[in-house]
Amino acid sequence: MENVQVLPLGGTGEIGKNMWAIRSGSDFLILDCGFAFPTEEMFGVDLVLPDYSVVLENQQNLRGIYISHGHEDHIGGLPFLLKKLSVVVPIYATPLTAGLIEAKLKEHASIRGKFPIHVVNPRDIVEAGGCQVEYIRVTHSIPDACSIAVHTPAGTIIYTGDWKMDQTPIDGQHFDFYKFAELGEKGVLLLLSDSTNATREGFTPSERMVEMGLDGAFATAKNRIIVSTFASNVHRVQIFCNLALKYGRKVALVGRSLVKTSEQARKHGFLNVPEGLLIKIDEATSLPHDQVVIVTTGSQGEPTSGLTRIANHQHKHINVLAGDTVILSAIPIPGNERTVSRVINKLFGSGAHVVYETSRSTAPGATKHVSGHASREELRIMLVLTKPKFFVPIHGEERHLIRHAELAQSVGIDSANILIPTNGDILEFTPKTCKVVGHFNAEPVLVDGSALGVGLGVLKDRKTLANDGVISAVVTVDEDGYILDGPELLSQGFVHEDEFEELVDAAREAIVVSLGRARDEGLLTSGALKRRMTEDVGRFFYDRTRRRPAILAMVQVVRSAGVPTATQPV
Amino acid sequence: MENVQVLPLGGTGEIGKNMWAIRSGSDFLILDCGFAFPTEEMFGVDLVLPDYSVVLENQQNLRGIYISHGHEDHIGGLPFLLKKLSVVVPIYATPLTAGLIEAKLKEHASIRGKFPIHVVNPRDIVEAGGCQVEYIRVTHSIPDACSIAVHTPAGTIIYTGDWKMDQTPIDGQHFDFYKFAELGEKGVLLLLSDSTNATREGFTPSERMVEMGLDGAFATAKNRIIVSTFASNVHRVQIFCNLALKYGRKVALVGRSLVKTSEQARKHGFLNVPEGLLIKIDEATSLPHDQVVIVTTGSQGEPTSGLTRIANHQHKHINVLAGDTVILSAIPIPGNERTVSRVINKLFGSGAHVVYETSRSTAPGATKHVSGHASREELRIMLVLTKPKFFVPIHGEERHLIRHAELAQSVGIDSANILIPTNGDILEFTPKTCKVVGHFNAEPVLVDGSALGVGLGVLKDRKTLANDGVISAVVTVDEDGYILDGPELLSQGFVHEDEFEELVDAAREAIVVSLGRARDEGLLTSGALKRRMTEDVGRFFYDRTRRRPAILAMVQVVRSAGVPTATQPV
Repeated sequence: MENVQVLPLGGTGEIGKNMWAIRSGSDFLILDCGFAFPTEEMFGVDLVLPDYSVVLENQQNLRGIYISHGHEDHIGGLPFLLKKLSVVVPIYATPLTAGLIEAKLKEHASIRGKFPIHVVNPRDIVEAGGCQVEYIRVTHSIPDACSIAVHTPAGTIIYTGDWKMDQTPIDGQHFDFYKFAELGEKGVLLLLSDSTNATREGFTPSERMVEMGLDGAFATAKNRIIVSTFASNVHRVQIFCNLALKYGRKVALVGRSLVKTSEQARKHGFLNVPEGLLIKIDEATSLPHDQVVIVTTGSQGEPTSGLTRIANHQHKHINVLAGDTVILSAIPIPGNERTVSRVINKLFGSGAHVVYETSRSTAPGATKHVSGHASREELRIMLVLTKPKFFVPIHGEERHLIRHAELAQSVGIDSANILIPTNGDILEFTPKTCKVVGHFNAEPVLVDGSALGVGLGVLKDRKTLANDGVISAVVTVDEDGYILDGPELLSQGFVHEDEFEELVDAAREAIVVSLGRARDEGLLTSGALKRRMTEDVGRFFYDRTRRRPAILAMVQVVRSAGVPTATQPV
Repeated sequence: MENVQVLPLGGTGEIGKNMWAIRSGSDFLILDCGFAFPTEEMFGVDLVLPDYSVVLENQQNLRGIYISHGHEDHIGGLPFLLKKLSVVVPIYATPLTAGLIEAKLKEHASIRGKFPIHVVNPRDIVEAGGCQVEYIRVTHSIPDACSIAVHTPAGTIIYTGDWKMDQTPIDGQHFDFYKFAELGEKGVLLLLSDSTNATREGFTPSERMVEMGLDGAFATAKNRIIVSTFASNVHRVQIFCNLALKYGRKVALVGRSLVKTSEQARKHGFLNVPEGLLIKIDEATSLPHDQVVIVTTGSQGEPTSGLTRIANHQHKHINVLAGDTVILSAIPIPGNERTVSRVINKLFGSGAHVVYETSRSTAPGATKHVSGHASREELRIMLVLTKPKFFVPIHGEERHLIRHAELAQSVGIDSANILIPTNGDILEFTPKTCKVVGHFNAEPVLVDGSALGVGLGVLKDRKTLANDGVISAVVTVDEDGYILDGPELLSQGFVHEDEFEELVDAAREAIVVSLGRARDEGLLTSGALKRRMTEDVGRFFYDRTRRRPAILAMVQVVRSAGVPTATQPV
């Protein structure tokens, strides 16, 4: 019987770096290629990638990379993957998404222009070896988002990507109910569906609600309006422009990513503003305050973002003033509450009128943010529309996947036909069966700015350094183990310098004693002395301070001149 | 004209370590003495204290320390302050609070039994030099909480402590409306009132709502019930006991702080359970699962707490099983969302039925947690009851203080009579005037396990270490600057060991070149060579990796024997 395999490379778990592979006979297809931002205990890590080994092993069969929409957690991994490939593979995406990908790849000289980016439109079908790949319009918090149906010899797989069912989308591009229903009618083997809001009952409100929710704030603002949101949320920028037009204000977009995304969106018809509405920031600073809207990023309190710099009076163009209205059109992503809170306090402290919410609004008509992901009622509709034989909840933490699986059962999917995936599982489907048939390596790959590897061992060391600091100790001895110079000690991040100074003499004595004992025991190699010194220095400082700083001990060995320069032999 | 000064030692700001001083003539009074838990970027810091200098300077006039209630952010600083005092000062508190303080001080040998703890009851008045201190019953998330009125020659100051207006308190001890109203009728100079929920409209629900909200979960639970909350929330423990009794279950309390607080609460009549209801954990493990309730701590995802260990299958007595009902009777404190989330995912993964909420419940009858602090409607009532001449919002971040100040204006307090305090301000009040007349040092004191100081410089170093790690480099030279041994390099938390190995030879060469150049320039002192080496090693690794690890460079100087052991002179 025909079978097809689905491989989650990074599509599940706390930090979703969405990437899936489908293997059907000798065809290997990639769906999305995202990265994730690190959690706060991943010291010094800039981003988290999937392990690409399984892709590289299958690259001779790789038919294409099919992208659902332009968010970083779906396209951000592309430069990293493409640099590792030794074959040229086509990339498929809708117009806006393709534009964003093109702009991104341009920044990487080694792959610039090397990989063809094919623009597809919703309902287009692309041949992929023995499979066909079909794009289906959905609504989401970035325009031009699609689900992807992969028609394989074993049956049709629908990968939803990120979606909600917005009946009043800002760009007028509707969710394609017909296409999902048609596929459902013909028979869907497997549905892979977004679980982000699987714990949220009801229906996610339309993006349009934000326009209504912010109208009052625009209507009553006396001075400047400064509004922040995600750089990629083109719908939201459209809303700010609509309201600015209504209330006789001009709009300045501030921030590189915001400007870049908005340019792409205008080019592809997803951001529609009359000539003259958008102005440069220097024009904005010369206009009367009640004629200005400044749109910036930083709704998550990111330290280098526009809003944070404005709040901290560190922005080169804009300084928040008493009487300004500052709107945070977003809610904190879990983990960001404290940094967002600090920005809000700073803005309050400057006398701004701050419009924000810390959680989902319950007051009708006051919506400042809506989610881009489907709530439980929408998830049920998707299941009923597509009537899949098998179901795999994707894109969420464990609880979201489990709740989504329970929900699927409640609308009639047999529990034996539901698999809750873990990154690295090989899920195999035939028209009659589903099971996990193996595993591949899907450990997250931690990357920092230098693109050097940062493994879990390095992170563990960084945690020690972060909590207790480091002490470095060195001594020079002659071939008989007599001290010629040192011991010398340095510390960083351990205690106040003067407190360290108080400990240093005793520590030096302890090392002298320790080396004397080592000499008596006949330990004379640099390596053995180093290990002994590391232990003894660690113990000394633990006894004195109850802390365990990292210890970097080194022993230098020099042929003695008979009379050492600094220290008497012991 | 008589005046009185109010000194915020730690009662405002993001991390509230509540402590206030009142100076009236030659009388110096302390209200509360709390500590705060560190924010996540305070690497290695265990707790945060106020700077006690201003108290120590005034200790000869210190009449007493008056405690409002038994939460750590109001009593946790006591051992640290008392150890620094050279005078014996009486402590005043209500019975349960006094019991908790006594238990706490017992753990510190150097102050055990040294400071008298006077038990006061609500409406008691204590003489304090030329002032009288009066306790007034309020309701809060720990029993036996009071506001404190200080009657000074300049007028009456009401310090609310933490409070809400709960008309159906679990312990039956009502908020003393009469006493606040009576003081208001007689005339209140100044109100200092809790701002925690000053951004929350309406009325905080009664603790009784939680009993109703959890009834359904208890009624329908098939196997064990594991419920977690704050150790100090005696009301909540009473609710769990009430529901256990109703549904024929026994209750085991798990965790030292929970057991300790509950013992004190039973002793003072705030926790009322029939004989035999409370059982030991070993008894619980031998009972049928549908007869057991396990109460534990860890509702904030603290790594060493009971619930986290149960979720991770690391608890010595209890292991979460499929079919258990786990109730998180708390909501995440901002900053803890991610850790709480992880615990919830683990519990889901074990097949438990997890009952939780991530934000304030909106579904009536489903309340799993209520706040212990007054919302805006209650704040208004407090202001109208006490009719203060002057108002100072306390206990909150900047936005809470500002919102509370605005609210006070809206109920008729003159804006000129409202001061928004900053820790370290000296606020002075006469019957007619209020102003900031000076400042004292109120920088937070960061404490770690060893009670050694951790200043901001140390924290900054720890941040560097956390993000980029450390490299230690050493070389031994003779008096003419020729290398006798080394350079040797070690790293930690920087890159993978094998990647470091690839860089090390080039780094050694760079140091050799650097030292050769220094020798040519006549730099021969150990200090000068060390500075040069620090710079050059830092630059080398930045050029190669774009990272800036901490560099600990050391140069040992030894009189040459003519022929070095390891390295040829350069």
